[in-house]
Amino acid sequence: MSDIHDQAPRRITILGATGSIGCNTLDVMAHLGGRGAFEVPAITGMGNIDLLARQARTAGAGFAVTADPDRYQDLKQALSGSGIEVGAGPSALVEAGERETDLVMAGIVGIAGLAPTLAAVSRGADIALANKECLVSAGDLFATAMTKGGGRLLPVDSEHNAIFQVLEQAQRHAVERIILTASGGPFRDYSREQMAAVTPEVAAAHPNWSMGLKISIDSASMFNKALEMIEARHLFGMKPEQIEVIIHPQSIVHSMVGYCDGSVLAQLGAPDMRHAIGYAISHPHRAPLPVERLDFAKLAKLEFHAPDETRFPALALARTAMQRGGLQGAVLNGAKEAALEAFIAGTIGFLQMADIVAATMDRLDDGRRASMIEDVYAADREARAIAKAIMERPA
Amino acid sequence: MSDIHDQAPRRITILGATGSIGCNTLDVMAHLGGRGAFEVPAITGMGNIDLLARQARTAGAGFAVTADPDRYQDLKQALSGSGIEVGAGPSALVEAGERETDLVMAGIVGIAGLAPTLAAVSRGADIALANKECLVSAGDLFATAMTKGGGRLLPVDSEHNAIFQVLEQAQRHAVERIILTASGGPFRDYSREQMAAVTPEVAAAHPNWSMGLKISIDSASMFNKALEMIEARHLFGMKPEQIEVIIHPQSIVHSMVGYCDGSVLAQLGAPDMRHAIGYAISHPHRAPLPVERLDFAKLAKLEFHAPDETRFPALALARTAMQRGGLQGAVLNGAKEAALEAFIAGTIGFLQMADIVAATMDRLDDGRRASMIEDVYAADREARAIAKAIMERPA
Repeated sequence: MSDIHDQAPRRITILGATGSIGCNTLDVMAHLGGRGAFEVPAITGMGNIDLLARQARTAGAGFAVTADPDRYQDLKQALSGSGIEVGAGPSALVEAGERETDLVMAGIVGIAGLAPTLAAVSRGADIALANKECLVSAGDLFATAMTKGGGRLLPVDSEHNAIFQVLEQAQRHAVERIILTASGGPFRDYSREQMAAVTPEVAAAHPNWSMGLKISIDSASMFNKALEMIEARHLFGMKPEQIEVIIHPQSIVHSMVGYCDGSVLAQLGAPDMRHAIGYAISHPHRAPLPVERLDFAKLAKLEFHAPDETRFPALALARTAMQRGGLQGAVLNGAKEAALEAFIAGTIGFLQMADIVAATMDRLDDGRRASMIEDVYAADREARAIAKAIMERPA
Repeated sequence: MSDIHDQAPRRITILGATGSIGCNTLDVMAHLGGRGAFEVPAITGMGNIDLLARQARTAGAGFAVTADPDRYQDLKQALSGSGIEVGAGPSALVEAGERETDLVMAGIVGIAGLAPTLAAVSRGADIALANKECLVSAGDLFATAMTKGGGRLLPVDSEHNAIFQVLEQAQRHAVERIILTASGGPFRDYSREQMAAVTPEVAAAHPNWSMGLKISIDSASMFNKALEMIEARHLFGMKPEQIEVIIHPQSIVHSMVGYCDGSVLAQLGAPDMRHAIGYAISHPHRAPLPVERLDFAKLAKLEFHAPDETRFPALALARTAMQRGGLQGAVLNGAKEAALEAFIAGTIGFLQMADIVAATMDRLDDGRRASMIEDVYAADREARAIAKAIMERPA
């Protein structure tokens, strides 16, 4: 097995343990040696108290936190006799992020992940980042905090993880472009007319990755890719024009980096999020993972085509947000969340989501920047409110 | 431009300057700053004295050598008044390899490249290796000399260069396999019957790379890939079963490395040997090269399929040579050269080449190893003689 086993146990805090990233993280940790190889100083979840308590006991966590302040007693009871410290609510989440570790897996979804992840960043922790909003909505704040804290950011999105793997740190000056691959989602061959008529159920059927409802729809609209473009900008210090997106239906090439000598380096793998999670957990070592190996003869072909931005305007909106800078990423994300919820509720059509995000971004294009996390929350709230107001306006 | 320009001129000796590797090397050096960026302590060629003299003058070489001892006076005359020292014949070639440099481009084709390259290796020079025979025929000797000398080996074959680019030095223990891509040559879809009838002219028409006659035919028979498998074994310390070959007709993915975490890293580029040459010349920096950039939407698809070893027995012969070890690589190569010459001369058919190599390898499967370079020459001569004897034997 790997070097990882010859070392002192690695201390990994898991923010958002009960979600898909968290569960896969615990699965990978169990495979890589479990309690013999890892300590879990803190673990957090939302309302699934049973699962969280089970995870905390199995991992031998030091501190277990539910984000829901009303469930404190439930979690306390579920962990009684375990000796595991219990907390609940936002300040306990931040405390979980602050506990001393070798790595924090930042798997809390949405804007709720900002504060605890920023707390971990600020104390100089290495972060395995699975939360998109940290960089999309608060990229500048995070960049400053990372520089100050001195920790490393290990991306857990398969695309950014791929780029991280083939981005030569000593040759960053030689990077010409990064190429994010996109499956294209279920509508990659639909006409605009067909797309206008789709339902949330149809939109959530992702061809390659098994994911939740919201992220599946974001993938179908390519808003997911739009967020990844903005993330990539902050993660890798790229200019907007250095970030390309290419449709790759097979999702085997997870992303690529193009250098000034014409070389393109790529990371490939089966579509399985344990690749990126395992990489982040084991970094800078590579440890054996029980994931499918690629058989190129079976794959037979890998296809690529340019995304159609008239059908997927989210990509152009990402470029606009990057060019405008400041809080436009937070506005794009907040407006997208509001529009996505309205689409799921059936009050707007699939293609209207981008229109509403565009209108909201224009309305809040006032050059504002974040100097603290509260500015990000405010921009997010305002974007959601404006998006809702636009949607409620009689047509 | 790159860091390369901020440093003292890089001293690069070019062995085999008038061939295709040598000419491309000088082209890349001219692009990367020419005499402002590079010094050329020594330069060597064969019988094309005019070209060699022109190259030596343009580069401001310190020492120019023709491998042909009878052309000493011609070269001396062509360089008169230039102040460039002149040499001819085998010992002058070795002297060229011994001159102090930062890098030696080992571009002499065939067994003739062994002695001067080994001379450079032995004095601890970094070597950009374009000669296959150094590793195929004399892999053990070279490995020992490299370890003793302490220099680095930078592969210039596009496949090995690709692997070098994505083989993480600190994670060598985590490498599961290397995957050499092969265009499959012009006969990849031919039946055995069709292959039996091909002429040298047809065999030399390579679909993607522009190359000389012999190497084009080696590519069509996949003997070229067989040599590359043996090279890869020595270059990267792989076991025979860790070396895979996959047919990839587009020649865009230049080769790949598979790790124990399921990740496969790949280097991609347009089929242009200046990629690998430029990489080796600039290493460890990446410097801008005037090569075509990949446009994935235009490429549209990358195909892969398993090689058919009944039609391409060269691959199995490479595995046999690796398993047997010792001088079987030299025997494979020597027999292949003799069979190739007979095929070009029209005395044997295309498919007979592999039969003759196999028979020669079996005949010389006596466990012999090389303890000095003369042993390699002897095995090469003997393999050629036996292959010829087999071919001359009445059927």
